[in-house]
Formats: sequence, structure tokens, C-alpha cells
Amino acid sequence: MPLPLKEIRSIVGKEHLSTAPEDLHCYSFDASKMHFRPEAVAFPGSAAEISELVKLANRERFAIFPRGSGSGMVGACLAKGGLVLVTNRLNRIIEIDADNMIAVVEPGVVTGDFQKAVSKMGLLYPPDPASLPFSTMGGNVAMCSGGPKAVKYGVTRDYILGLEVVLPTGDIVRTGTRTMKGVVGYDLTRLMTGSEGTLGIFTSIIVRLVPAPESVRTITAVFPKIDDAARAVGEILKNRIIPSTMELLDQATIQAVENYINAGLPSDAEAMMLIEVDGPGIVLDAQIEQIGRICQSCGASRTEAARTEPEREKLWQARRSISPALGRIKPGKINEDVTVPRSKIPNLVRAVKELADKYNLIIVCFGHAGDGNIHTNIMLDRKNPDEAKRAAKAVEELFKIVLDLQGTLSGEHGIGIAKSPFIELEVGPGGLDAMRRIKEALDPLNIMNPGKMFVPDRSFLEGDFG
Amino acid sequence: MPLPLKEIRSIVGKEHLSTAPEDLHCYSFDASKMHFRPEAVAFPGSAAEISELVKLANRERFAIFPRGSGSGMVGACLAKGGLVLVTNRLNRIIEIDADNMIAVVEPGVVTGDFQKAVSKMGLLYPPDPASLPFSTMGGNVAMCSGGPKAVKYGVTRDYILGLEVVLPTGDIVRTGTRTMKGVVGYDLTRLMTGSEGTLGIFTSIIVRLVPAPESVRTITAVFPKIDDAARAVGEILKNRIIPSTMELLDQATIQAVENYINAGLPSDAEAMMLIEVDGPGIVLDAQIEQIGRICQSCGASRTEAARTEPEREKLWQARRSISPALGRIKPGKINEDVTVPRSKIPNLVRAVKELADKYNLIIVCFGHAGDGNIHTNIMLDRKNPDEAKRAAKAVEELFKIVLDLQGTLSGEHGIGIAKSPFIELEVGPGGLDAMRRIKEALDPLNIMNPGKMFVPDRSFLEGDFG
Repeated sequence: MPLPLKEIRSIVGKEHLSTAPEDLHCYSFDASKMHFRPEAVAFPGSAAEISELVKLANRERFAIFPRGSGSGMVGACLAKGGLVLVTNRLNRIIEIDADNMIAVVEPGVVTGDFQKAVSKMGLLYPPDPASLPFSTMGGNVAMCSGGPKAVKYGVTRDYILGLEVVLPTGDIVRTGTRTMKGVVGYDLTRLMTGSEGTLGIFTSIIVRLVPAPESVRTITAVFPKIDDAARAVGEILKNRIIPSTMELLDQATIQAVENYINAGLPSDAEAMMLIEVDGPGIVLDAQIEQIGRICQSCGASRTEAARTEPEREKLWQARRSISPALGRIKPGKINEDVTVPRSKIPNLVRAVKELADKYNLIIVCFGHAGDGNIHTNIMLDRKNPDEAKRAAKAVEELFKIVLDLQGTLSGEHGIGIAKSPFIELEVGPGGLDAMRRIKEALDPLNIMNPGKMFVPDRSFLEGDFG
Repeated sequence: MPLPLKEIRSIVGKEHLSTAPEDLHCYSFDASKMHFRPEAVAFPGSAAEISELVKLANRERFAIFPRGSGSGMVGACLAKGGLVLVTNRLNRIIEIDADNMIAVVEPGVVTGDFQKAVSKMGLLYPPDPASLPFSTMGGNVAMCSGGPKAVKYGVTRDYILGLEVVLPTGDIVRTGTRTMKGVVGYDLTRLMTGSEGTLGIFTSIIVRLVPAPESVRTITAVFPKIDDAARAVGEILKNRIIPSTMELLDQATIQAVENYINAGLPSDAEAMMLIEVDGPGIVLDAQIEQIGRICQSCGASRTEAARTEPEREKLWQARRSISPALGRIKPGKINEDVTVPRSKIPNLVRAVKELADKYNLIIVCFGHAGDGNIHTNIMLDRKNPDEAKRAAKAVEELFKIVLDLQGTLSGEHGIGIAKSPFIELEVGPGGLDAMRRIKEALDPLNIMNPGKMFVPDRSFLEGDFG
């Protein structure tokens, strides 16, 4: 059935609805590189308009696909037909209440812009997904985004206090509170956070802020053996130091980066770590020294602390060069964000090495050692069908390995389309059934972002890549 | 319909089911002082037994009321007929994994015992409800308990990573992860946390731990004007100091305590605060000094810092004496745990003073100034029906005041029976409808802790007090 374009136009205004092929093309992608074409794209300007659209969708039985800036990694915002609903016009920072350290934002606010705005007031919004220069707060809440700072500061869910949401029925409800504490009824705020646009469209978000740290210090350490790196992570935390960042590069990553930047990185080392602490300046120097000592006593062959901003920049160069460096190895990659208890990182990296050998693939591991969230990148030329097939097999085995290590299939990217065939592996039939019942209870006609999370068939995973 | 006692007995064993009047009496109360008698009390020993009981309840249509140690404040575990299911036999700490700073516990573990166990390993489980010497982990998760430390450390939900739950259908499911990050499907863990036993019975709980702080320092400050105390709270946080505790006593509380302990408390001051910082010893002395200076510059007439444990004990004496001191004023009280944005605390306290005058009641305010969670105690002789009626009216007005101040009806006690008539005031008809749909989706026969949260009639609030 075609979309009721006339009614949609009368709700959002004709300049805010498009069926132009070039627009449909632009809104057919996200960072997963999958590709599905919607029938139309709407840019509503208020919660009331969104509510009208959703009520219309229930009456006329069409699907609505909420979308921020399309930076997601798993196709969670992609539309097979239906109406893409872009939140970019709801882009106001409504309020920054420094006294109570909260803010209220609309979903289309870019996360990085929001961080800059609160930072001017001496405050910090900690969640820091790599996409933050362009991803939106609404998208971050929908996906419960993570980032390197989670080891100290937690993830998006830890900062979302309340929401205004248009439910799949069109009802506009307010969830949560403006306070840290609040236990009135079911925690709809956290149920919505990470629900990937399948349970409602956020129209305003109440966010918790923390005081910005006074200072930051950075150190890198080179470990000939990766087990020693993992041990150092544990020892640092046991010494009551909680770094704001503990990034790990495995040997394959170090080699890829060194081939790219020729900075004299230790290609023979199994691991390199970049560790940052933040807080009152008075303790940081002592903490960095202690971290250096702990790394050395755990077997680090070299440590290097940055004392100035340019020195810090230099230490970050290797970490920041990973993405372009990988781009030189193969044109494509499958970027899995599996997560294991941090003491199991060496087991994971070793198992991945075996997988790479078994399937004759290049797989690099890097990421957030403090919280066990290791980006496992299977390098890939999608035009090579044999390699693509081997990669798909490796992914399935990877997931089994991760679950055996008591980990999770996704630390920060989510399920969307890409991992939908695998969700039951982790949550079990009972868990999936409970989730499906909740979805049906709140969205009886399945109009809100259908085809995500609950679709076990994997046909859409094959082909149709951009 | 009477309970199928024979089948229940065959599931839990005859020594773990009681219909003895003295047992039924013991399990008729919680800290709300309401009083409802179950038909029987079962003490299952495993998740499998609980699952069997729940399946039986679905077949035979009887109600199950999960219960920890009965320390809740709102009647959330009370049973009108049906079967009380006590979790006290599931009381093992299954695992403390110091490397990954997590623990796995059964629901019947007493929270204080668990804190002691992790503290021996240099770790901290921060949630600290006043009931922790006897309340259970399962009860704390069911109610999403808070406590004084929330300003720095957050509440129970911030420490629960995953659950094993017997759903109202009898399915045993595992939710969440053993890691800080995890975004696989809907966040059932946080939906269950605070669901007050209406969505399932926890059989194991994965808990996040943090390093125990090296040291603690304590200071008290006396404020002639309560606005100045609230301003000091804001200034301390703006100076990037996040105390682990910021307890406030209003004038009525100070006077009640002074009448009780005669310790020379300043009965003419509008507020007293007790502030603690924890962390590395090296920063704490400087922080306490700075807090003292901030309080003075905000108008404190006196500050006193504790340098030794006995000095700290002395400063805590006033805070700890509140409960017994109030007991001397009236035999009963209605203890509301309303919460407002912390900058609105003076507005709340002033409005409460007006309420007390209007209804000729004694109302004292004290609690957690850092997170705006102010225990508002209406002192009461329940045998005086006129006073009880005035108190009930004052409660209703209090709730409206709190919502006008953008606060919440309950920061840490929950809804249960006591606040069920008022929940819609805060969450609205749309929010309540969404919650009810979730309840019906997961518990279609309404066998799990019925009569809580969703019962708007207030008949059960009157009479039947113990």
C-alpha cells in the first residue's frame, strides 16, 4: 500500500516531506553500509507532529523508521519501504541547569555540540561514542551508545534520567525524573534506552551531567605479551585507580598502524595500551607514576607519559590512525563490538587469532580494555564472495567464543538488522519471547521500526551492500 | 479458591511450607505497618522450585507475593490471601570476581552481609538503604533502593548488571551481562529493577562493584538560613567536589533530636548538614577544608570537621538519633521520600512548613540533600482519626507541591500499595497505560504480586494498620 503522502504533508508541511530520489538515496544508508530504500522521508518539527504521524501510521498501517544522523553500525535506522522520520529539526538544547547538573535536549542535538555547550559551564556529559561529532543524542539514547570512557563513567543509560516519548500508539508520555533518584512505576526510561527506535520516538531527553574533571594525564605502555597487558588493567583498578580510558591495540592492529604511519611502533609486541586518568591535578601525577610502575611490574617493556598537550596528541596518534590504517588493508570490514569480562581479553584475542588462521582472514582487535569491549574487525573485500563467506562463518564462531567467555555479542553497537539473527543465542528463547511480548504490548500493529531485533532470518544480510 | 497446598508442598517439601497462624502473622507486615494476611508461606530452595510454583499458580490461578525480609516502606510485599514466597533460603554469595569487579548473589543475601564480604576484598557495593543490616539484595533490586551515598555513587539500578528471573509465566530467563557494556535487546535488567515483584522473581543477581575508597572525612555545618544550606550544596558540587554523603536536617528535625539527646545542637538554626567525602587521603583534607570555606562563605555559622573515627561517630550521632527522637514526639508517622531537584529543597521545606501550620501537624524534613531526596515525616497518632484525616490531606498536597517543583513522589521507597492511588499524578494516564500493558504482556493472568502499583482505589489505605 502506498504511503498517504497527502496526509503526511498536511501534518509536517510540504517543505518537510520528500520523495525525491536523491533524498531517498541519502536516507538509505547508515554506517553498517547496508542499503534499503524508504518510500518517503519526513522531517517533523515537534512532538505533536510526530504524534500525528504515528497515529496516522496506525490508522493507515504504514511503517515509521525513526532516524538521527544515520551513524549507527547495525542498520537499526534503515527502512524497507515506509516512512523515514528524521529528528534533525528537533535540535534545541532546551535547558542546561548547572545548579542541578541536568540538561534537557531535543533528540536531534548533535552529541559533540552538546558536550561543548556543557563544557563551557564546567560540566561534562561523559558518553563519548566515536561518532559524537555527528551522531545525535536521540540516536545515542536509542542505541545506548558507549565509548572509551565507560570504564570510569559508564554508558549512555547511566546519564539518561527521563524522556518525553511518542509511543507507537501516538501517545506522548513523560518517563523518569529530573533527579538521580526516582522509583515511581516501571523504569520506562531505561526500557526505552537501547530499544533501537522500536518502542517509541524520543522528543525530549533529560540528561544527568557531572563536574568536568580538572585535568587529564596520558600514558602508553608496550607489552610483549598480551596477558601481561590484561593483568596490568586488573592491577591498576585494584590499586583504586579508575582510569577514564584504557585503550588496547593488539599486535595485528599495531602492525597495521605502523605500516600506515611509520612512527616506530613496536610491531613485535603483542599489545600496546593507552591509559588516561582524569580528576584533580594534585593526584594525577602520582597516579600516572603508579600506573607506569604497575605496567612495568606486569611486564611492560616501555612506558611513556605525556606531560603536555602536544605530547598527549602524539600518544593518541596511533589510536586515531587505526581506522584509516585498516582501510589500506582491505576495502571493507565487519566491525564487531563484542565484550567480555576484562580478565578474559587475552582468551578472546588468542581465540580470534586462531579464527583468523582457520579462515585465512586478517582480523584485528582493539578497543576498550577497561570494560572488555574489544572491537574485532574482520578485514574484507566484499567483492570476493569466498572471503565474504569465510568472514560470515568466522563471525558466527566469534559469537560462540564470546558467549563461552561469559561475554556479550554487542557492547555498544546494538542489534538492528545486522545482529538480529543472533540475538537469541545470547538472550535465549525465554528472553526473546519476553522482549517480543513487550514490543507487541506497546506496538500492537508493529508500525514502529519493524524488521529490527526480532527478525531471525538473515536473507537481508546478504547482498544489497552499498 | 483455596491454595493447592498439596501440590505446593510437593514442590518445596513439607518443611518449607507453612499455614501456621503464627507464621501467617509474621508475614503479614512490612515496614509500612500495613497488615494483610496470606493463606500460606512458602520457602522455596531453588530457581527450579520457584518456576514450578509460578507455573502451578498459572494453572490454578492463585496469587504469588515475593518477599525478601519485609523491610519495605510501602507494602509492596504484602499479600491479601494467596501465597507469600520468601527468598531467604536462596542466600548464597555465589561468586565475588575481584578481577572483573563483579559479584553474583542470590536474592536472599542480606545487603549488609554482602557489603562486608566485598569490603574484605577491598571492594565496595555502594547502595546503602537504611535497612541494609536486614534488607535483602533481592528486595533492594525489586525496589531499586537508594540511600545517602546516591549523590556520588547512584542507586541500586546503577549496580545491577544482570539477573536470573523467573517470569510470571514460570520461564527462567537470564537478562543483562557480566560487563558494564551490553546492548543486546531490550534492557530487561533495568525494567525488572524497581518493578516491585510484579514482573518476576529474581533468583540470581549480577552486581557491579567499585574499588573501596581509601579514606573518608566528615564535616558538619550549621546554617541559620536553609536557603544558604542549599546554596552551599550547589557550590560544593560546582567546585568539582562530589561528596559521598550530604545529609540535611531541617529545624524541626534539629529540635526533635536536641530534645532527645541534649547535645547542644543549634535549635535556632534552620538547617544542619553532615557532609562526607571519600577517596584518596591525599585530596580529602584539602576537600574538607574547601567545603568548610564554601559553607562559611554561603552563611554557615559554624563548621566542625572530624579527624578521628570517634569524632566522626560524634558528628553522626545527631543524624542517627532522628528515628528514635521522632518516636518520642508521636507514636506513628507517615514517612514520605519525596525528591526534588536539589536547588528546590528550600522551596520544599518552606512549603512543608506551611502545610504543617495549615493542618496543625508536626512535619519534619531530613535526608539526602545532594540528590534532593528529602524524607518528609508527618508525625501522627493513628488512634486520633481527626489527625489521621488531616495527615492524609497533607500528603496529597505534599505530592502536588513536589510535582510542581519538578520532583518525584518517591525517590527510594516505591509505590507498592501505599502510593498506588497517586502514581498516575506523576506518570500520567499514558505512562500508566504503558506500564499496565507491559504488566499484562508479561503476566497475563495477573498472578505475580497483584494489587500493587496499578490499584487506584484507596480503600486499603484506611484502617487495618498494625
